[in-house]
Amino acid sequence: MAYEFKIVRRVEFSETDMAGIVHYSNFFRYMEAAEHAFFRSLGFSVVTNQVDPPVGWPRVHAECDYREPLRFEDEIEVHMSVTEKRSKSLKYDFVFRKLNSSPPAEVARGSLTVVCVTHHLGKMTATAIPRNIAEKIEVTPGRAS
Amino acid sequence: MAYEFKIVRRVEFSETDMAGIVHYSNFFRYMEAAEHAFFRSLGFSVVTNQVDPPVGWPRVHAECDYREPLRFEDEIEVHMSVTEKRSKSLKYDFVFRKLNSSPPAEVARGSLTVVCVTHHLGKMTATAIPRNIAEKIEVTPGRAS
Amino acid sequence: MAYEFKIVRRVEFSETDMAGIVHYSNFFRYMEAAEHAFFRSLGFSVVTNQVDPPVGWPRVHAECDYREPLRFEDEIEVHMSVTEKRSKSLKYDFVFRKLNSSPPAEVARGSLTVVCVTHHLGKMTATAIPRNIAEKIEVTPGRAS
Amino acid sequence: MAYEFKIVRRVEFSETDMAGIVHYSNFFRYMEAAEHAFFRSLGFSVVTNQVDPPVGWPRVHAECDYREPLRFEDEIEVHMSVTEKRSKSLKYDFVFRKLNSSPPAEVARGSLTVVCVTHHLGKMTATAIPRNIAEKIEVTPGRAS
Repeated sequence: MAYEFKIVRRVEFSETDMAGIVHYSNFFRYMEAAEHAFFRSLGFSVVTNQVDPPVGWPRVHAECDYREPLRFEDEIEVHMSVTEKRSKSLKYDFVFRKLNSSPPAEVARGSLTVVCVTHHLGKMTATAIPRNIAEKIEVTPGRAS
Repeated sequence: MAYEFKIVRRVEFSETDMAGIVHYSNFFRYMEAAEHAFFRSLGFSVVTNQVDPPVGWPRVHAECDYREPLRFEDEIEVHMSVTEKRSKSLKYDFVFRKLNSSPPAEVARGSLTVVCVTHHLGKMTATAIPRNIAEKIEVTPGRAS
Repeated sequence: MAYEFKIVRRVEFSETDMAGIVHYSNFFRYMEAAEHAFFRSLGFSVVTNQVDPPVGWPRVHAECDYREPLRFEDEIEVHMSVTEKRSKSLKYDFVFRKLNSSPPAEVARGSLTVVCVTHHLGKMTATAIPRNIAEKIEVTPGRAS
Repeated sequence: MAYEFKIVRRVEFSETDMAGIVHYSNFFRYMEAAEHAFFRSLGFSVVTNQVDPPVGWPRVHAECDYREPLRFEDEIEVHMSVTEKRSKSLKYDFVFRKLNSSPPAEVARGSLTVVCVTHHLGKMTATAIPRNIAEKIEVTPGRAS
């Protein structure tokens, strides 16, 4: 069972804005990239056909606190932790660190709450997380779920 | 003095993802579009040279609660309200409504906290909101600031 | 029958990059926005269920020539013309004009070639443009098709 | 001296659209990512202060031919080659291959023409490529420059 994952990526030019820093909306893309890499580390794709019926994971809450800006070519670590696990939803916390500063500096923190859904006739319905996925995910030790 | 603004826009194809809905990060772009239109309605550009020294408005907090998905060509209203006004920062709340449903449905709520900064040698420093801007913005009546 | 369409839009902050100008990839999003508005002007959505089976319009070629940069809050006109119409494909040409310069200045030109496809088991197959769509689109007069 | 570079990346969820494939505009972001990695491989950042005055590289032409779609989590190789080198401009060609097909399949080809510029009072002026950059870049053998 797993409860955390880290990815490292480099800020791309197209992620910056005219203020010379990463546009704040892109931190939410970085969070999602970490989440999906976490799923892959468990042997699943987040858009898996490995469960029947297929499930999706729409977000019901997203937030981010920004402490320091990120700039082009900064190397960043996104550290994701599972901090809540319910029958139909998960909550992840994220810490962003800029690795090319000395020492590495925390630049932002965020969180996502996602719900497991099935799709039927264009409607999404919350559903229990499939057992083969749920049994591989646990809450970060020391965190109340 | 003004405390709110509404924009209407249509969901574009490039804002959707493979789940067939607007990618959750784009709600933060919609919020920013409303904020900037609000500034224009006051006679300012958010990247104005109308104050000396020029100021910027980096985000220190952003969040969104998603209730219903948005899809391609949905017509949405983004209603922004100023809910906090401090010497160096503003907080905005946002309500997203889907106009092409009957009746128009609230699909999401969000908020942004932004700080007024000046730039010097690549560093951003929090600064008092310039008076000619501050005197045009007030907090939504009925909201404690 | 129609062969052209114009949209006007304002450059958004999130469309700029650290060079202070619209990121070059966004011109392709602007082209698509004009194309989809053209379809709406004909009474269709580009992801229509008004034809059976539903069709899609993937791009097989895209290009753009950039003459002048666009900046935040520039007001731009995207003028689209149909310059080729074949049984299974369309070609559009685009002219970008910056309206907030005097006189309005041409800043870029682009083109897209799109193919009409149906989807089956995850594969796309080129198909004839449905008659009720094809009969509403013609090639810009003076252009060889 | 160098004339080519390859990067490998995995398609992210936020790069897809409601057709279930990578939005065509994102191929231009992939091209730029390869270009910037090529510059780093030469010891430069594309937004370098290692030359005085600093230079930028706006695009004057961009194009892409799409043969097969890319989907979420596809692993792609972007192979960039320098195919023209002039005093003030460079042309790059790109081949996109999908590595998670057997055998790896070419899915797209593109090209970019970029001009070296300096910035002065908000205007960009074409300038000779700085010698310490130019002397590290050559045209792909077998290509006429």
